[in-house]
Amino acid sequence: MNEREIDVPGPTLEELRRRLTKFAAARRWEPFHTPKNLAAALTVEAAELLEIFQWLTPEQASAVMADPDRAHRVRDEVADVLAYLLQFCTAVGVDPLTALAAKIERNELRFPVPGAVGDVNPEDVS
Amino acid sequence: MNEREIDVPGPTLEELRRRLTKFAAARRWEPFHTPKNLAAALTVEAAELLEIFQWLTPEQASAVMADPDRAHRVRDEVADVLAYLLQFCTAVGVDPLTALAAKIERNELRFPVPGAVGDVNPEDVS
Amino acid sequence: MNEREIDVPGPTLEELRRRLTKFAAARRWEPFHTPKNLAAALTVEAAELLEIFQWLTPEQASAVMADPDRAHRVRDEVADVLAYLLQFCTAVGVDPLTALAAKIERNELRFPVPGAVGDVNPEDVS
Amino acid sequence: MNEREIDVPGPTLEELRRRLTKFAAARRWEPFHTPKNLAAALTVEAAELLEIFQWLTPEQASAVMADPDRAHRVRDEVADVLAYLLQFCTAVGVDPLTALAAKIERNELRFPVPGAVGDVNPEDVS
Repeated sequence: MNEREIDVPGPTLEELRRRLTKFAAARRWEPFHTPKNLAAALTVEAAELLEIFQWLTPEQASAVMADPDRAHRVRDEVADVLAYLLQFCTAVGVDPLTALAAKIERNELRFPVPGAVGDVNPEDVS
Repeated sequence: MNEREIDVPGPTLEELRRRLTKFAAARRWEPFHTPKNLAAALTVEAAELLEIFQWLTPEQASAVMADPDRAHRVRDEVADVLAYLLQFCTAVGVDPLTALAAKIERNELRFPVPGAVGDVNPEDVS
Repeated sequence: MNEREIDVPGPTLEELRRRLTKFAAARRWEPFHTPKNLAAALTVEAAELLEIFQWLTPEQASAVMADPDRAHRVRDEVADVLAYLLQFCTAVGVDPLTALAAKIERNELRFPVPGAVGDVNPEDVS
Repeated sequence: MNEREIDVPGPTLEELRRRLTKFAAARRWEPFHTPKNLAAALTVEAAELLEIFQWLTPEQASAVMADPDRAHRVRDEVADVLAYLLQFCTAVGVDPLTALAAKIERNELRFPVPGAVGDVNPEDVS
């Protein structure tokens, strides 16, 4: 599987979210897609991603994409996590990009950059 | 927190991914952001989202966003899951949208729509 | 698989913990059995137990042991969770029974029984 | 918190399991203690144990019990994981010790000890 070509715009997150909604509707899976079930499925898929790494040394873990089988599993589990996160967001009516942008703004206040203007005396650094 | 206004385009997933990379770099957090650590953190955050729902009945779970405190926690955990997923993708060099698009295509073959052309006797439908 | 017969004492938790330690030592797995790896493996196995239930209705979930395949998976995942918990305890030097007894005592103070002596006006009960 | 004294027998797993059953019954928590909810709670607690380790280096993780605050959190999360595992076992009627003993026996066949009798020629080792 190749990563997306530079000049060909790939699908947006919102397009994929809608495609997943249609996919589930066509198969009549909506009754199963409650917020609670989807939060459980999201956790299970995240744990399956973690499973790939659980016995690896830091060096092996860093080289995980050099092994084609592991690389495929990683991409597959990333897709599953994102799929259930998007379906969860559909079920509860949350926009994930807006939620993340708001969180980043809160974190910028919560974790000021060390050494930012006003935060250190430049002479301390010399 | 309001959801994104219709006519004002919000940030894209790729913009937020880059912003998270800069955020971590400015705080010198990259040494901690190994694929293994980020997969663990992703699982922990997914479990924190699940925690909100673990004792709720299906009815309570469906109404979760009507409670302002729970709604805030839900948005916050969605943001955390997406943040760690994007940082994981940066660490391993995976494009999450491409991975998800490929997975949806595989699933469309794996789970054919019941009643799709070629799958049913047209007389059944009439 | 039958549950333990009443009159034949089965293994104790401590006996199984030691057997797991010998099992790992004989296979030279100790270098992998760090507290961090074992905590990850424990989470992965707990998620695999959850996976059995994720799409089940409450009714189906309650009848899970009536299906022989699911019942086998449940027993298998319970064993895996307990195995990694015991191996984690070995790695960090914690006695799980002592830890749980202490926690129950803290919880008895934290969540007093409603209607316990001293907690209600006896006239309310008449 | 001290670990259990050598000569004073502590509670058995079965005693603690029964105590947890009474604890939940006295507080009328049984309706919440479905297999599905307990499997979710077990996963959440395992993830909370993992959270203690997620940013630690292998060296820091190995020394986790030398830090009194972290040591207390570790014991507390071990207790929570074991408590939900026992309550899950009660809900589905599984004996965790029997399940684990059976699993160890299966694993002894599945992962033979390297160098065990019949597995190597002793001359290979000399």
